[in-house]
Amino acid sequence: MVILGIDPGLAHTGWGVVETRGSACRARAYGCVATRAHEAIDSRLGRIYDELRAVIDRYGPTELAIENVYFGENVKSAVATAQARGVAIVACAKAGLTVGEYTPMQIKQAVVGTGAADKRQVMYMVRNVLCLDHEPRPDHAADALAAAICHANLTRTKSLGIQRSVLQ
Amino acid sequence: MVILGIDPGLAHTGWGVVETRGSACRARAYGCVATRAHEAIDSRLGRIYDELRAVIDRYGPTELAIENVYFGENVKSAVATAQARGVAIVACAKAGLTVGEYTPMQIKQAVVGTGAADKRQVMYMVRNVLCLDHEPRPDHAADALAAAICHANLTRTKSLGIQRSVLQ
Repeated sequence: MVILGIDPGLAHTGWGVVETRGSACRARAYGCVATRAHEAIDSRLGRIYDELRAVIDRYGPTELAIENVYFGENVKSAVATAQARGVAIVACAKAGLTVGEYTPMQIKQAVVGTGAADKRQVMYMVRNVLCLDHEPRPDHAADALAAAICHANLTRTKSLGIQRSVLQ
Repeated sequence: MVILGIDPGLAHTGWGVVETRGSACRARAYGCVATRAHEAIDSRLGRIYDELRAVIDRYGPTELAIENVYFGENVKSAVATAQARGVAIVACAKAGLTVGEYTPMQIKQAVVGTGAADKRQVMYMVRNVLCLDHEPRPDHAADALAAAICHANLTRTKSLGIQRSVLQ
């Protein structure tokens, strides 16, 4: 299974492509679409759409794992993030990816084992789970990889649950 | 000039196409993309994208007038609206439309003459300005037509300002 993780944002949309084989996860690629505040909104959102479509075309993921917007941040910031999130979901939907949505807490829980983990713990575990010889940068890309790992773990757990219930 | 007005929303995205000739505005068409809360987010946003692209293909607008997200509403609702707004902007950007963004207050000011106008006053003026023999429904479509009228008025005012300064 090839999963595209996305940490959406108007200024920075992190993305990470993770491939799973059994219980192993490996990073295929990761990066970040950065746009500038002085650019027009249609140019910023258009670039997020185009660059994510290019990532999908290049790496062929079949599943999307995307962070929910964190309501705790201020409304203006949440609205900017949500616009980018909508665009990211449509870019993936147009390419036929199935969508998994996760809260930041679910992602931390699945990757680190606690929803209260800080950014450094998430970064450490992403590096270890994916057997990277370096910490993935920028943070937005690491968060996107974490979303993909979360999706892989939860999908595997669900599938094991079904297998167990068939065996019983 | 053919203007596409959009009142974005995840459950209801109103749209209205207005054609201007000199100081006259006429409605070409209007409508609303409705999605249901039980549908998957990618299906809802994908449909908003597809239906707006179909409207653009059919009526050939060259300009988009879109409402800003009103920060006064609750964050959850603002985030849902913002996702649809991002998708609407990308649908128009991909079709080459130039984008005009307006606050609800700017739209009321331009259509009714006061930013404190209520929905009924906006509806009344939209009907009159566009010489319609009925009130445009649903409200989201009327709000989208109001955004288009706002764009037409402000564009004409700007253009007259330039002509005046040339004549002086």
